[in-house]
Amino acid sequence: MSKLSSQISFVLVQPQFSGNAGAAARALKNTGFKKLVLVKPHFRLDAEEAKQFAVQAGDVLKKSVVTDDLLEAVKDCSLVLGTSRREGAYRKNFIELFDLPGLAEKFLARGKIAILFGNETSGLSNEELEYCQHILRIPADPRYGSYNLAQAVLLVAFELFRSKVKPRPKEKVAYPSAKDLEGMHAHLTEMLTEVGFMRKTTPYHMPRILRNIFGRAHLTDAEARVIRGICRQVLWYKKRSTGL
Amino acid sequence: MSKLSSQISFVLVQPQFSGNAGAAARALKNTGFKKLVLVKPHFRLDAEEAKQFAVQAGDVLKKSVVTDDLLEAVKDCSLVLGTSRREGAYRKNFIELFDLPGLAEKFLARGKIAILFGNETSGLSNEELEYCQHILRIPADPRYGSYNLAQAVLLVAFELFRSKVKPRPKEKVAYPSAKDLEGMHAHLTEMLTEVGFMRKTTPYHMPRILRNIFGRAHLTDAEARVIRGICRQVLWYKKRSTGL
Repeated sequence: MSKLSSQISFVLVQPQFSGNAGAAARALKNTGFKKLVLVKPHFRLDAEEAKQFAVQAGDVLKKSVVTDDLLEAVKDCSLVLGTSRREGAYRKNFIELFDLPGLAEKFLARGKIAILFGNETSGLSNEELEYCQHILRIPADPRYGSYNLAQAVLLVAFELFRSKVKPRPKEKVAYPSAKDLEGMHAHLTEMLTEVGFMRKTTPYHMPRILRNIFGRAHLTDAEARVIRGICRQVLWYKKRSTGL
Repeated sequence: MSKLSSQISFVLVQPQFSGNAGAAARALKNTGFKKLVLVKPHFRLDAEEAKQFAVQAGDVLKKSVVTDDLLEAVKDCSLVLGTSRREGAYRKNFIELFDLPGLAEKFLARGKIAILFGNETSGLSNEELEYCQHILRIPADPRYGSYNLAQAVLLVAFELFRSKVKPRPKEKVAYPSAKDLEGMHAHLTEMLTEVGFMRKTTPYHMPRILRNIFGRAHLTDAEARVIRGICRQVLWYKKRSTGL
């Protein structure tokens, strides 16, 4: 993530609501990014609402770059993408959100990347899209395809982040061996026979059901020992109370 | 999506801020969902802020179910999942966000699914997680793993939605055949030779560069014709001005 994080900037073009800048900063920090750029924002960065929505991402918000000039915001980028869902006659170079990680990977070897997000009411204008080699499209239900600005930032950042998520570290949990499990099932059969739930003459059916249940449950070693503890306790109780 | 949409409910447990309910409603509508449930919300559904954040998803917000009892909210579900990132000694049944679509697919054949989201400050309590067969984990940067409530709803809904997104309809754009492209490149070579940019004695290098450029650009038929139009115009202009 380190390269992604320092080389990709998220550029809000003329955002209207300070809460969205704060929420965008939080979404970036949640997904390991930190470069937020605001072009002609309609509010001050230290607006109370921006800070409220940023919660613990106040640092990302505070360090965001504010500029009056879109070209200034993207000038050192080798790839500029603009998010948009409107299709016009000359709006051809679409790429889908799901293809973004592959494209970003390719371009990060060449330099920086900027991803532009238009204002809340009308999105990116044709003029603003001129700077973009590709238009990035975020899939949505066709009946209501307009995402909130900070939600759009989150979906794009998360798509880049998800491709870098490492598999979780191996669990430090012990699992029973097949032999341990056989021991547990033998113990269960013994207990259920002793209490008269199963009969020695029809042993097959019920153990099979229990095997299905515990098989799907993927018991840990500790859990298998709990089951055996229950068997032991019932057998002990039965012996104590009946003397058999 | 129709089955997913009617059988999966998104349950906000004791949400504190009405804006999050509105933003969650919008995120659900964006991703084709509609069932929002609020358990003991700390606000009224018709709060102005909720409606503001819902924007065009006021219908989803208005139709959301409000209840005082979590069990009531999930009672007819065959699978209940709780989103959480805290790990405790007895919090074992984690599933990762990326495995959610597969699990949901399996359970939708059996009945309804509820996905619980805890309140903004402390998330789901151990007591609330008791109802959940699995804990759903949304990956995040470890330095700031806490998503805004509506952002978490969006990521979960989008993960289910993305698995159902159909490939876009085939483009109605014509692409040039290899023969058309050869014609275009011959035309370019002719034009560049005529204007003295290329020499007939060293014809290989420059056409190769142009082939690389236009090859990567994946020209449409209309675009290839534009290039030929430029060649034609330059040739005509050169002929007119030099008489050669």
